[in-house]
Amino acid sequence: MNLNIAVLAGDGIGPEVVEQAQKVSDAIAKKYGHTINWTPAITGAAAIDAVGEPYPDATHEICMNSDAVLFGAIGLPRFDNDPSNPVRPEQGLLAMRKKLGLYANIRPTLVFPSLLHKSPLRPELIENADFVCIRELTGGIYFGDKGRNEARDKAWDVCEYTKPEVERIIRLAYTYAMARKKKLTIVDKANVLETSRLWREVGQSLEKEYPEVKTEYLLVDAAAMRIIQWPEGFDVMVTENMFGDILTDEASVISGSMGLMPSASIGLHTSVFEPIHGSYPQATGLNIANPIGTVLSAAMMFEYAFKLMDEAQEIKDVVNKSLAEGIVTEDIAGKDKAYGTKEVGDWLAAQIV
Amino acid sequence: MNLNIAVLAGDGIGPEVVEQAQKVSDAIAKKYGHTINWTPAITGAAAIDAVGEPYPDATHEICMNSDAVLFGAIGLPRFDNDPSNPVRPEQGLLAMRKKLGLYANIRPTLVFPSLLHKSPLRPELIENADFVCIRELTGGIYFGDKGRNEARDKAWDVCEYTKPEVERIIRLAYTYAMARKKKLTIVDKANVLETSRLWREVGQSLEKEYPEVKTEYLLVDAAAMRIIQWPEGFDVMVTENMFGDILTDEASVISGSMGLMPSASIGLHTSVFEPIHGSYPQATGLNIANPIGTVLSAAMMFEYAFKLMDEAQEIKDVVNKSLAEGIVTEDIAGKDKAYGTKEVGDWLAAQIV
Ligand SMILES: CC(C)[C@H](C(=O)O)[C@@H](O)C(=O)O
Ligand SMILES: CC(C)[C@H](C(=O)O)[C@@H](O)C(=O)O
Repeated sequence: MNLNIAVLAGDGIGPEVVEQAQKVSDAIAKKYGHTINWTPAITGAAAIDAVGEPYPDATHEICMNSDAVLFGAIGLPRFDNDPSNPVRPEQGLLAMRKKLGLYANIRPTLVFPSLLHKSPLRPELIENADFVCIRELTGGIYFGDKGRNEARDKAWDVCEYTKPEVERIIRLAYTYAMARKKKLTIVDKANVLETSRLWREVGQSLEKEYPEVKTEYLLVDAAAMRIIQWPEGFDVMVTENMFGDILTDEASVISGSMGLMPSASIGLHTSVFEPIHGSYPQATGLNIANPIGTVLSAAMMFEYAFKLMDEAQEIKDVVNKSLAEGIVTEDIAGKDKAYGTKEVGDWLAAQIV
Repeated sequence: MNLNIAVLAGDGIGPEVVEQAQKVSDAIAKKYGHTINWTPAITGAAAIDAVGEPYPDATHEICMNSDAVLFGAIGLPRFDNDPSNPVRPEQGLLAMRKKLGLYANIRPTLVFPSLLHKSPLRPELIENADFVCIRELTGGIYFGDKGRNEARDKAWDVCEYTKPEVERIIRLAYTYAMARKKKLTIVDKANVLETSRLWREVGQSLEKEYPEVKTEYLLVDAAAMRIIQWPEGFDVMVTENMFGDILTDEASVISGSMGLMPSASIGLHTSVFEPIHGSYPQATGLNIANPIGTVLSAAMMFEYAFKLMDEAQEIKDVVNKSLAEGIVTEDIAGKDKAYGTKEVGDWLAAQIV
């Protein structure tokens, strides 16, 4: 197969971790007889510095013409101090989501047995935690009207959802639940919000089409509690954009190994694969960042964008092997020997023969 | 002193736990020479059944004429299945908040040394956790315009804040921080929301008035993570209504003893004191509910509504004694002997002589 992949390495440690994921992907491609054409493009602070905007048209063109996008991370501290700054790296992220129609962010939450001790939660609560959070990514309060009155002493943000938007994401969540343990948790705030009542109506109307799936509705405040109290109680969770932002980050903590966590953003035009961690600017160039989150994002790319299941599985297998054998970066190594970003990437690629 | 207190016991276990808090308050009043006039009033499902609405005018009148309100809990399962039901117990809560001007919900998060093992978090992470969450309670997306288009396939909720609303709550948060460890965390989503940018502007303008306080700004997604990863990092946290709903519930889990947690809602007209737990309908009448959350809410009432600090401290002291001596309900007792709701209340009151 010919795989056309856009590479948006971004800021901070982005380029370093993306490089390792490319290395591993190339090894997989070689073994299985595929050809990967990588097309790099700029985004984030790097793009602001180069052309004045964080998601330039040229970058968007490259993404639109690719079968998938491998993304690193964006954001630099010099943009963080003033959130009202008109041009900011995160705007690139939001523009990309909207323009590529990335309506669903998929985040598996898995716990690695050898890393149970890294979790802030008691090990017995998380041993069997294995769930997927699906966050609506192009609607809600992120993209509704927002503004100020003339005196600038009153501000508003509008949260909006249409039935087709909600239906699309809940259907996607059902297909995940069908392929997993057949339990779907729809998270909303239906006792307060009208948009949540729309979500619940749509859920209730789709339930019938998936009789094998056990559907439950959970208020967002209760969900924030259950993620900590009983993470094993979830299989697939689906929610709107803002709640998803909060709950997926909360859930990412339970594994205790954020640097390992991948994500996929499923799009109408193309899909984007990226680690959940940020640009970690303090670590830039130090060869200490954990590349596994990006490598596992590449595995998701083989699975979701190319339907190449064996290839995806082999990447996951070599990652598990590296964890088992202690070929890991300092965030995971604890008191044991730590390897560099590049060394972990080299080791993983070398396993694929 | 003459203390006029409205008693809104509510639904489920509300009446049982409130009764114990009244018993303890009466013992304190007797010892310190105060007279308490308790005026009961209906609310929640009980009020819907009696007069068709969850926060009747008569109840509001009683609250307005009281120095403080002691509140139990509201909600019953028969109202929960259909969130679009036009009359629901929670609406009583929202009406009460708005009409009494309860603009600030205060929730201390404390960990009881003898109960460290009840927390889902590792004990070493929470031993020294001791922070206060302050949630704005009468603004934001809870009270903004909400609705549907005619076809009912599009819904919206408007989040709105004015500068005076934000200033009032951030100032309150600063007074708490000044009386504590002088650290204030203002939680927002300023990289996406205009209302959050208003919050941040107001924070930045007030900072200068409290130079002794270390002010930090934290994005809500990062806050959801830090509550689990490093709860000891907080002193006072302040945030808007919806974020506060999610984060205070998340934070309430870390102590592992929800039944012990009190709260205060500070009002323009009068203030309301209530446990953070719900109406727990399954336990109604079984004499098993933990009354400590309500008893400690009464302690907050003596402190905040009446400025009777010794009285408040004595309630906290007898509660600590009951925990140390194992005079506790089944949620706390574990494998040890459990006492009934009423027995715990009797024991606490009997200590106050
Ligand atoms: C950077 C920010 C705009 C973004 C979001 O809120 O969606 C981030 O937190 C995320 O979750 O990808
Ligand atoms: C019952 C509900 C409307 C309420 C809220 O969301 O404020 C509750 O969750 C709370 O936190 O007191």
